[in-house]
Amino acid sequence: MRDTAVLLIDCPDRKGLVACVSGMLYERGANILHADQHIDHELEMFFMRVEWALRGTNSEGKGFDLEAFKAEFAPRAAELNMHWTLSSGSRRVRVALFCSQYLHCVADLLYRWKTGELECEIPLVVSNHATVADLAAFYGVPFEHLPVNAATRGDVERRQLQLLASHNVELVVLARYMQILSAEFVARYPAGIINVHHSFLPAFTGARPYHAAHERGVKLIGATSHYVTEALDDGPIIEQDVARISHRDQVEDLVARGRDLERMVLSRAVRWHLERRILCYGNKTVVFD
Amino acid sequence: MRDTAVLLIDCPDRKGLVACVSGMLYERGANILHADQHIDHELEMFFMRVEWALRGTNSEGKGFDLEAFKAEFAPRAAELNMHWTLSSGSRRVRVALFCSQYLHCVADLLYRWKTGELECEIPLVVSNHATVADLAAFYGVPFEHLPVNAATRGDVERRQLQLLASHNVELVVLARYMQILSAEFVARYPAGIINVHHSFLPAFTGARPYHAAHERGVKLIGATSHYVTEALDDGPIIEQDVARISHRDQVEDLVARGRDLERMVLSRAVRWHLERRILCYGNKTVVFD
Amino acid sequence: MRDTAVLLIDCPDRKGLVACVSGMLYERGANILHADQHIDHELEMFFMRVEWALRGTNSEGKGFDLEAFKAEFAPRAAELNMHWTLSSGSRRVRVALFCSQYLHCVADLLYRWKTGELECEIPLVVSNHATVADLAAFYGVPFEHLPVNAATRGDVERRQLQLLASHNVELVVLARYMQILSAEFVARYPAGIINVHHSFLPAFTGARPYHAAHERGVKLIGATSHYVTEALDDGPIIEQDVARISHRDQVEDLVARGRDLERMVLSRAVRWHLERRILCYGNKTVVFD
Amino acid sequence: MRDTAVLLIDCPDRKGLVACVSGMLYERGANILHADQHIDHELEMFFMRVEWALRGTNSEGKGFDLEAFKAEFAPRAAELNMHWTLSSGSRRVRVALFCSQYLHCVADLLYRWKTGELECEIPLVVSNHATVADLAAFYGVPFEHLPVNAATRGDVERRQLQLLASHNVELVVLARYMQILSAEFVARYPAGIINVHHSFLPAFTGARPYHAAHERGVKLIGATSHYVTEALDDGPIIEQDVARISHRDQVEDLVARGRDLERMVLSRAVRWHLERRILCYGNKTVVFD
Repeated sequence: MRDTAVLLIDCPDRKGLVACVSGMLYERGANILHADQHIDHELEMFFMRVEWALRGTNSEGKGFDLEAFKAEFAPRAAELNMHWTLSSGSRRVRVALFCSQYLHCVADLLYRWKTGELECEIPLVVSNHATVADLAAFYGVPFEHLPVNAATRGDVERRQLQLLASHNVELVVLARYMQILSAEFVARYPAGIINVHHSFLPAFTGARPYHAAHERGVKLIGATSHYVTEALDDGPIIEQDVARISHRDQVEDLVARGRDLERMVLSRAVRWHLERRILCYGNKTVVFD
Repeated sequence: MRDTAVLLIDCPDRKGLVACVSGMLYERGANILHADQHIDHELEMFFMRVEWALRGTNSEGKGFDLEAFKAEFAPRAAELNMHWTLSSGSRRVRVALFCSQYLHCVADLLYRWKTGELECEIPLVVSNHATVADLAAFYGVPFEHLPVNAATRGDVERRQLQLLASHNVELVVLARYMQILSAEFVARYPAGIINVHHSFLPAFTGARPYHAAHERGVKLIGATSHYVTEALDDGPIIEQDVARISHRDQVEDLVARGRDLERMVLSRAVRWHLERRILCYGNKTVVFD
Repeated sequence: MRDTAVLLIDCPDRKGLVACVSGMLYERGANILHADQHIDHELEMFFMRVEWALRGTNSEGKGFDLEAFKAEFAPRAAELNMHWTLSSGSRRVRVALFCSQYLHCVADLLYRWKTGELECEIPLVVSNHATVADLAAFYGVPFEHLPVNAATRGDVERRQLQLLASHNVELVVLARYMQILSAEFVARYPAGIINVHHSFLPAFTGARPYHAAHERGVKLIGATSHYVTEALDDGPIIEQDVARISHRDQVEDLVARGRDLERMVLSRAVRWHLERRILCYGNKTVVFD
Repeated sequence: MRDTAVLLIDCPDRKGLVACVSGMLYERGANILHADQHIDHELEMFFMRVEWALRGTNSEGKGFDLEAFKAEFAPRAAELNMHWTLSSGSRRVRVALFCSQYLHCVADLLYRWKTGELECEIPLVVSNHATVADLAAFYGVPFEHLPVNAATRGDVERRQLQLLASHNVELVVLARYMQILSAEFVARYPAGIINVHHSFLPAFTGARPYHAAHERGVKLIGATSHYVTEALDDGPIIEQDVARISHRDQVEDLVARGRDLERMVLSRAVRWHLERRILCYGNKTVVFD
């Protein structure tokens, strides 16, 4: 686990923002590991990500005092109308995985988590099917089987929200979870639910995108990971990728090729979220590399 | 110029089609250079492309007798309900290039033609702007400047069709030609008009796709080459490609990146068409590699 | 499991080969699903892959008689100096997985096998480390832990060969197996051992390719799957893929990005091998799509 | 032409560098458009690129005073052991294009220059063949035809250096120039000569890389743009790209596919150089996006 702090900022653009933030960090002896900014000249918005070491860095060899910095930074940030989050890498984000019958994404995420590629806690796997039970057991993650139908949808969502709350979940990953979440549910986790859609959005929204892609005769298929908002398949896009297909590929071939795309774009999105590389604004994302 | 013949076939699938065609070619001493088939099991359609040498090949060392083969093949093909075209590589397809103000595609095609990468005749460049005049002159291709407006559209199309007819044009390439062709015009050249659309179809159809892509916040932009049908941006897709973009890219960056994509997908489509690699069926293409 | 037969042929090129093979299949009422040929005009070699249905296809509605075809085809093939293999899709290839401490490839292959993406039997996992034990157990595959050192190498290989023989293994997949196999071992499985090398061969052969790539400052890293021959990292290449990196990526980032490349190129190679899409000739492969 | 200034810095890493530079710019009222840093933790090196507007920006509405900033920055930079370059976008870099018989790269660069995609001056095209004469004339660029052979090499290089000096050339682009430059020549333009090599370096260095790639049976071909150093094909890599090939592709197909790769990687490298996005260190490049 990297013992670092990450400061994410977005605010109206103005002169001196970089100087201000880097100056304050310098005064406290921060050893900056990465710093990146972006200015959207249309919206006149400023975005910044700074990552610095928390250990044995300042002149007295003491660790960086995160709380003291926070106390000093908060009022300055308020003056500059900054939205900001300061997170310590030593604290792992708590993630819940939702899936249905297709397990390739959830299996991939669990493997990457187990091997340390995804630095987070996974206290919960939820599915409307029981098929994921063995996998969850193998990785030692509690599994909740919550079947859904039109009649029970409301109750199930309430139960899901209880579980998320009781496990202090901060990020919900829809790993091919084939149920639509209500606006109320989504509203509880702003920029806190990541979904993978098995098409190159905005093409082929909705159900059965591989069938639609085959029907249209496209030469590339895609997958898209995005934050979930009220509007289905319309949230801020985090990552997309494509694969070449040909006239020889039938729908089942597209589905198979697509599984690899889905794994890739979803796992990248989750990793970037955990590394605090993503800032949402409007309906877009800034992804700091 | 390759001195070869290419036979393109599509017909209802049934047993023995490969045996039938390859057998007839073998009996006439054809030296097959490439042969490829495709069977669409949904539509129960059969597609075949065979290419063979025309020179000094048979037992008597005489060249392959194309006309005799045609005479023999025609009735057999009729029995099998084949659509087929038999073309000789020694005859170059006659191509007209249509463009407007953006010249990157037409410049690219003219260069590839001049250097022999595109084996065809280009007897005509048509534009509703004069900007391409120097380029056409440099490559020694007659240029017709035909401005278009709502009032003159009909007359201009009639003039364009006259020009195409008088130059025996078989393929029209819309190299970023920003005017919409009438259904009547399109109907005159079935699978004979290739267009490039500056998006990853079916995403962002219509005008200003790069603006729409930027607005949506996609992470990849694309370009698509396709045959033109009545329905705008809805014809059979020949080739697509994409390029990665980031939050740093503004619309003008997308436009610049896109120019390279457009050049690539359009030039590939034209080359494949000239090499008789493409078969249209339904609203799709088979592209034999 | 697809109930199909696949005939793979390579032989000196001559006229009438397609007609001959397709004719013989037609006479026996084969329902051809896919047929593809390739002619290497330099080497004057002919390559062909034909796949046809084995069930209820001929006039009498009887299944295709594979043995009868074989008996008839063999002498004809001999006359034409064909190397050929006729395999029935209803028989699954028996595959052994070898790995060491990095488990991403073996985990990926086991998952694809379990979900039916790889149609084969996996009777054996072998490793010089014990770390794969749980994974093998989860998938219900017998695991043999065979530590290797300079002194025991010979004995270990003998033991490995015994195991492969006793399990009737036909394909050995080196899924990041970090031990070099002896020429004797390799000779026992011609075109029967698939390895993944974590570089874009022929760049960065040998050990620590990611370190070498980082040292050289390349902008893309790659991975390569290939058949193993005596010469290390020099066997016929089956598949390669690359990923873009930047100056920000340190060696550990390359290693992480590379894992996904390795999984992809190795799993594709194994799938294509199982689908009998690959023909080796000289030091190259023909991969029929 | 963007009326901006770009400051490129590399120096030993230490705390406060971002604060120092951004602070000095802020005090002078710089309106920063882009800022990016990179820290190489192995080498403990710091790299920074800052771009800011030069027009009507400070409190008095006066333009940014570049000379005054330079005078103030220089001593501070010296204390911090910075290598730095401060360039004004309003001054176009002067570029010479060298080519031989293959003109696809030089034609591409001239087109991109003419259309404003490459913001530079091109006062000179040099070739050891006359084939580029028409193209240079079309674009209105003076062309020097300087044939080379073993006997005249030295004299030709002296003549070339005279021409470069008399045209105040700052960047030499080897657009498929098939002659090897002497160490003396190269030494005159450190990080000032960009070459394109038609392979995925470090694979297939030296002559006829496409033949070597075909011989080896790779599944992807590549192209690489790099700064020229004494060691052939071993300079700092700027950009690389690849294209998928198959067993069907003969050497001439690789050459044709490769032309597009060469155009892309070379034009990107030249554009990035002109936009001052590239920093060389050791034998690598930092390319700020």
